[in-house]
Amino acid sequence: MKKIDGGVCAAKGFSAGGVHCGVKADSDPAKRDLALILSEKECAAAAVYTTNRVKAAPLYVTMEHLEEGVCRGIVANSGNANACAPQSHENALEMCALAAIATGLKPQDFAVASTGVIGQTLNLAPIQAGLPALVKSLRPDGDGSDAAAHAIMTTDTVKKETAVELELGGKTVRLGAIAKGSGMIHPNMGTMLCFITTDCAITSDMLQEALHTVTRRTFNRVTVDGDTSTNDMCVILANGMAGNPQIEWEDEDFATFQAALMNLCTDLARRIAGDGEGASRLITCAVRQARSEESAERLAKAVVGSALVKAAMFGADANWGRVLCAMGYSKAPFRPEYVDISFTSAAGTIPVCRQGSGLAFDEDKAKQILTQDEVVIDVCLNEGDEQATCWGCDLTYDYVKINGDYRT
Amino acid sequence: MKKIDGGVCAAKGFSAGGVHCGVKADSDPAKRDLALILSEKECAAAAVYTTNRVKAAPLYVTMEHLEEGVCRGIVANSGNANACAPQSHENALEMCALAAIATGLKPQDFAVASTGVIGQTLNLAPIQAGLPALVKSLRPDGDGSDAAAHAIMTTDTVKKETAVELELGGKTVRLGAIAKGSGMIHPNMGTMLCFITTDCAITSDMLQEALHTVTRRTFNRVTVDGDTSTNDMCVILANGMAGNPQIEWEDEDFATFQAALMNLCTDLARRIAGDGEGASRLITCAVRQARSEESAERLAKAVVGSALVKAAMFGADANWGRVLCAMGYSKAPFRPEYVDISFTSAAGTIPVCRQGSGLAFDEDKAKQILTQDEVVIDVCLNEGDEQATCWGCDLTYDYVKINGDYRT
Repeated sequence: MKKIDGGVCAAKGFSAGGVHCGVKADSDPAKRDLALILSEKECAAAAVYTTNRVKAAPLYVTMEHLEEGVCRGIVANSGNANACAPQSHENALEMCALAAIATGLKPQDFAVASTGVIGQTLNLAPIQAGLPALVKSLRPDGDGSDAAAHAIMTTDTVKKETAVELELGGKTVRLGAIAKGSGMIHPNMGTMLCFITTDCAITSDMLQEALHTVTRRTFNRVTVDGDTSTNDMCVILANGMAGNPQIEWEDEDFATFQAALMNLCTDLARRIAGDGEGASRLITCAVRQARSEESAERLAKAVVGSALVKAAMFGADANWGRVLCAMGYSKAPFRPEYVDISFTSAAGTIPVCRQGSGLAFDEDKAKQILTQDEVVIDVCLNEGDEQATCWGCDLTYDYVKINGDYRT
Repeated sequence: MKKIDGGVCAAKGFSAGGVHCGVKADSDPAKRDLALILSEKECAAAAVYTTNRVKAAPLYVTMEHLEEGVCRGIVANSGNANACAPQSHENALEMCALAAIATGLKPQDFAVASTGVIGQTLNLAPIQAGLPALVKSLRPDGDGSDAAAHAIMTTDTVKKETAVELELGGKTVRLGAIAKGSGMIHPNMGTMLCFITTDCAITSDMLQEALHTVTRRTFNRVTVDGDTSTNDMCVILANGMAGNPQIEWEDEDFATFQAALMNLCTDLARRIAGDGEGASRLITCAVRQARSEESAERLAKAVVGSALVKAAMFGADANWGRVLCAMGYSKAPFRPEYVDISFTSAAGTIPVCRQGSGLAFDEDKAKQILTQDEVVIDVCLNEGDEQATCWGCDLTYDYVKINGDYRT
């Protein structure tokens, strides 16, 4: 397996594009707000959705359109979440109808996604006007993926795109993805928007199984602010054009495919955490030697989700007491008196707690370690063989600034 | 029932004091860091403690000393949490022993509490040196309570003190309290430090029952940052000196006493939320017409605990979509399409959502309402007759600043 270029257009038979049509209040034409991903052939499709009880209309429409596990493309806008507003459901259906008209396909061939402000009616006029130009602009290469990746960004500061290549049954199979996500991000959901394409031949059932397993260990282990969005969705389309023997069981090929998907999604999960709203650094918490993966995950999530840990990381303050405190209220079972904690980054490692008790340490060295772009909080429970890693970011002035007046 | 002055010294037979002994790194003698509350007579005692799995040593020692439901006084320091550090347990025991020496009582006559940095060994030398002067300074009046209230503050910007008076069985009964709490505050615990005194005659069992009921609806409904501390504790001492017929059952007197305690703790809960670290305003979420009090509480807690709602409140942004979104991930059952939301403050009321859908509203009026010191988010579920109110505060630059470098 190796990293390649091309994003969602890396796999055979996919094209993509993104334009500015005018959904975003800002009329700056550089701000793309409408994306389209299309496959030459019908795809096996799978998706995971937010666990929020309040689900945006596009999610319900996508669930319906993907009911039989097939799909041809994805249409998405940024700037308006099309959630909790009059006409939301009709508008999500209409977005698919407009995409169908512009492409000559059927409305139910499309998954649809929206991201942006909640509670304002989505104006379809700019989408209707922009779609023909968007379809004309579709490209089967990295530029097409790049345009689509930009068109789904909201407060993201960097576009998120990745792709990998692997061998399956003597054939080259490719997977690529674009994602957006910066705030309103918290475990236990499909998380943010992520669109994945692959030319792998695989049934929609096996695709759903792989996606479910992978999101649980990647996107669902990211937290930026503890707020689970109404619009989160991760969709994967597989058009089979790689020509590999179709994956129909949990066989070796399935394991290989799933490992590649894990790799792809881990990469994006880390980038989403690192680009958390206002974030100045990526915080990884790895909990090791746990009695179960579930409790390791719960502990790691509590640590990266703690406002006090996040603020301490912003201040490059080796305040490990807050790490232990967050573990304590996670509701996961562990023995505080067994816990070892250390901080690690490119600048080195510093142990700060052994068997639940503070160690004397060099504050200057700790500062040096904690001021790097990526900091790992390593927690060893000394109780078992299981582990889990979760990702988050620091809490900064900019998070408050970005979210203090996002809507207006 | 009426508000009176005097704090923890309002009730007969209690004296209190607070001095600077040197636990706080800052050697500014104006920064008090050692408090003592003492009753002339033995008290019935009850307490609630943090639900954090990592509990600070003083909590275990207090649990032990209060095992038989009796107590004479409370000794507390600020500046060091005496948690997760070598010798924590020995130091908590020794603090009681030192208080006993200085007062001529027994170590097990004392409840002990600490608040401050986690993970650093508490230096007992300044406490030992400071206790005789502290005992000498004890006063049975408002000045004594004031000094003790100051001595338990950490990042608190205002001291928190309150007292009420009521009639029970023809006698005047008084209840008073001091509290501290500003950060690391989240529901489901005894919450922060709160010391309550009363001259009511009541058994320790009934005292425990009243305290449990009241904290569940007051302190456990406050959230500042979602971080449940290792040191939270609320202790109540009742010395019986009011001479009322002792409360031994759930009779009318018990109901009257519990109502007064509810009043006292609601007052302090609101003040703790309003003085949340960096807070510029108190945010109250009242969820009405719910099917159960439990789900109303869960929904209201999710709203005041949402980082995005808190940041929007800081920006005086009427972003009600985030309110509905937070309700959605609370795991409480409700029908989004039935929900009405409005914002209320001293400047008026503005409905922003009806039956789950956004209403057009005057942005200028909304801004005016949301820039007040106290804002109420009123949520009507239109489903039943139950309700719950939770308190929090906005998320500001100052929260990040205070917590970015608290330890050093």
